[in-house]
Amino acid sequence: MNGAESLVKTLVRGGVDVCFANPGTSEMHFVSALDRIPGIRCVLGLFEGVVTGAADGYYRMAEKPAATLLHLGPGLGNGLANLHNARRANSSIVNIVGEHATYHIQYDAPLTSDIESIARPMSAWVHTSREARLVGADAADAIAVARSPKGQIATLILPADTAWNEGGVVGTVAPTPGPRPVPSEVVQEVVEALKQGDSMILIGNRALRADALPIAAAIGAATGVKVASLSRNPRIERGAGRVSVDRIPNPVENSRPMLAALKTLILVDEVSPVSFFAQPGKIGKLTADTCRVLTLAASGDDVVAALTEVAEAFAARADQVKPDVLARPDMPTGELTLTKVAQALGALIPENAIICDESITSGRGLFPATAGAPPHDWLQLTGGSIGMGIPLSTGAAVACPERQVINLQADGSGMYTFQALWTQAREKLNVVTVIWANRSYKILHGELINVGAGAAGPTARTMLDLDNPTIDWVSLARGMGVEGARATIMEEFTAAMISALARPGPFLIEVVL
Amino acid sequence: MNGAESLVKTLVRGGVDVCFANPGTSEMHFVSALDRIPGIRCVLGLFEGVVTGAADGYYRMAEKPAATLLHLGPGLGNGLANLHNARRANSSIVNIVGEHATYHIQYDAPLTSDIESIARPMSAWVHTSREARLVGADAADAIAVARSPKGQIATLILPADTAWNEGGVVGTVAPTPGPRPVPSEVVQEVVEALKQGDSMILIGNRALRADALPIAAAIGAATGVKVASLSRNPRIERGAGRVSVDRIPNPVENSRPMLAALKTLILVDEVSPVSFFAQPGKIGKLTADTCRVLTLAASGDDVVAALTEVAEAFAARADQVKPDVLARPDMPTGELTLTKVAQALGALIPENAIICDESITSGRGLFPATAGAPPHDWLQLTGGSIGMGIPLSTGAAVACPERQVINLQADGSGMYTFQALWTQAREKLNVVTVIWANRSYKILHGELINVGAGAAGPTARTMLDLDNPTIDWVSLARGMGVEGARATIMEEFTAAMISALARPGPFLIEVVL
Repeated sequence: MNGAESLVKTLVRGGVDVCFANPGTSEMHFVSALDRIPGIRCVLGLFEGVVTGAADGYYRMAEKPAATLLHLGPGLGNGLANLHNARRANSSIVNIVGEHATYHIQYDAPLTSDIESIARPMSAWVHTSREARLVGADAADAIAVARSPKGQIATLILPADTAWNEGGVVGTVAPTPGPRPVPSEVVQEVVEALKQGDSMILIGNRALRADALPIAAAIGAATGVKVASLSRNPRIERGAGRVSVDRIPNPVENSRPMLAALKTLILVDEVSPVSFFAQPGKIGKLTADTCRVLTLAASGDDVVAALTEVAEAFAARADQVKPDVLARPDMPTGELTLTKVAQALGALIPENAIICDESITSGRGLFPATAGAPPHDWLQLTGGSIGMGIPLSTGAAVACPERQVINLQADGSGMYTFQALWTQAREKLNVVTVIWANRSYKILHGELINVGAGAAGPTARTMLDLDNPTIDWVSLARGMGVEGARATIMEEFTAAMISALARPGPFLIEVVL
Repeated sequence: MNGAESLVKTLVRGGVDVCFANPGTSEMHFVSALDRIPGIRCVLGLFEGVVTGAADGYYRMAEKPAATLLHLGPGLGNGLANLHNARRANSSIVNIVGEHATYHIQYDAPLTSDIESIARPMSAWVHTSREARLVGADAADAIAVARSPKGQIATLILPADTAWNEGGVVGTVAPTPGPRPVPSEVVQEVVEALKQGDSMILIGNRALRADALPIAAAIGAATGVKVASLSRNPRIERGAGRVSVDRIPNPVENSRPMLAALKTLILVDEVSPVSFFAQPGKIGKLTADTCRVLTLAASGDDVVAALTEVAEAFAARADQVKPDVLARPDMPTGELTLTKVAQALGALIPENAIICDESITSGRGLFPATAGAPPHDWLQLTGGSIGMGIPLSTGAAVACPERQVINLQADGSGMYTFQALWTQAREKLNVVTVIWANRSYKILHGELINVGAGAAGPTARTMLDLDNPTIDWVSLARGMGVEGARATIMEEFTAAMISALARPGPFLIEVVL
């Protein structure tokens, strides 16, 4: 058994059965081992940003890590932006990055670079295998790091000779630990704080699932404390029959007065809110210095148990919280507007859908219009690194082939990684991509004014507008083997969406704004 | 004057008058300063790999650095692969990477990451500005590093507050030094070695320009020593009226016996040849341990002067070297083959064209068929990081608007960064992109066998073949605002190429192999 074979067998033993891949020469023995040893589904991405974004989407839905297969430093570099988002989503990923043979690195061959330096900023763990006999154990370590209670990114760098040399030993993967219990004194402190008033409970990540949300809402009802979430969560379970909490809309800076007035902020799988970007003359921390920040549960802690204990202290009953009711908007017609498209989505989202949301400026009206749709999952942009949506929806669809995925995609960010459409076509994934074609980096026009730099002049417009030439998304999709349609009035959008949802495989709708 | 304004004025003063850009919020004051202060042409790329690859192509042709404008760690990450190629091309680039305001970094806002760690592997110099008043001086340092005798990549990280705060001071840019003279004892040592036999002169980079090549060839003729070059050079001046030298074809490993027999290897702006990748049981160094390696001139040294001195020692006369004569192949017809397309290119390449070559496996017959075309420049893939061609040709066309650019592009690598087509359309660049549509990572099928891993089975094929679905390059180009045509027989290719060369602006030809 060579090192590559021990790697594949360790991955299989560790429950890693999907590999999003873009291989190169140095990974050929790993490819060969994947070819010969059953147990791992290999999904090709035509660019590494597709690979890493898909691994993020896969984890968010499957709740277990996929492997990625990346080629040397540049391949990892190409995947870095979506690893950044995955890291901010607490997604668990096992990156396998090929490297030159250990004895070849000294020659500084053309593709040599410092892979560890590139990997470190986005990885909780980076390790280069030294010998074939250690690859299995190294992979087991990587899986254990990735599967920690808080999902993490582990990057294993695999020199080619450690893959091809004999002597591989299948690694023993440590059992996946459950979430960490929250000490009762922490719970007690939170309970006491909630009795004081001027508080907010800010919930994120795991606390936005269907089992946790009613408990949080019950605590809010029993204590009169506001319960809210930010707008950059890995996954929210919502829709009819689910419980929703207030959302602090993006940009979070707009909620500055409300946040600054708090005496206590209680965090549940969330961090203290700060402004996304600094602005001249405004401080980045959105709570007052006098605000006491208590963490009930950090990422990886047992969120449901901690919330339950707090609820019990107030005799708050989750089963008495009223869930959102099924309430679909009427189907709008005529002129196409963002509000109407949001309503149409609310009217059409099928039960159990997965919504990936990289709408950026176009998405601000989506939440209210879809709150009464049948139960669905909503996946947000966690790290602010654009180019997430098409890969994320691809990975989510690989994780949940029986569910409909809808990706709401701004056009500027969609351009980054739309090679993922090809993977959707190849794997026949049920993804409908809705492109918000506003033909500009619209958010930046606003930010230029926000930071006090004024409105865009001619040179700035050359860097912020995408209208010369106009991007033809339907042609782009066709080029990738995905059918599409363009919608300029509501009837076109509705017809395209109904048709897209009824058919198997991917579809793209360009919404001309 | 704020820091951003001092940055723009320093760039202009330092002769940096093109900025390839993909901005974000943290760069808005830099964008605003570019908007208000004339002197820098801003060219938008819809993905950062476009931006950095274009800066590489621009430098190779303009021989002066462009700036790039990149957004935080993820934006830099997206540009890393083509920075890798630029580094291997000794291209000079001044990266400006936006960063959070200095006081905002502590809050670990969603887009925070360790930018310096990402930048270092591909940069000769990395620096984060600390204050507005230092930005101008920092930028001057960056330009000086970039404009060193050996072109280098300098990465200046610009926290938002150093851009917007007042107190900016325009930096004083050190004069650009000329190439370093080569000591006469080094010349003498090379002259003595050349008298011994069993030698080779391996020339690269600056030695492949029209002023150096005849001198190198004259030395070869006078001494009987073989003069050759590798196949990963930033820029070769070639064609009718120019002098060519033997080319060690890719993969260089195939020349192992010839290289291993050398007693002396003389390097002129080149490094000792090693195999691109290690293979089981084969050593990576391609010269024998007993081979003496002498460097006549390293990158940044005065290559022409050093060659001239050596030539004089042998009374070798460059003006007596016979240049390649104008000899265009006949125009082939009928069935389309790689050989025939190469001949058609040899028949059609216009005078003074710039050829960007990311043909990978499809390009092996191109050099002989085009040697007798009118004089032109040939730009190769220097670092092996795929996704270079479309951005590189974009930057070359920005540098040389009066010249025809032809980009010969493998399909697998073209998929990485084909957003650059949009920039070509927007800037109305004279670039003809020829896509070699073999619909596979064909080189990897070969490498799988080379490394002893055998032929691809079903799972490996899912990672190496791009034929399901077939990529429709003409639709992709149309989506980006670039007209295109598909060629399945030679007459179609020839007609499309003649038409494309006759018109202004970009065009794409998909060659179905």
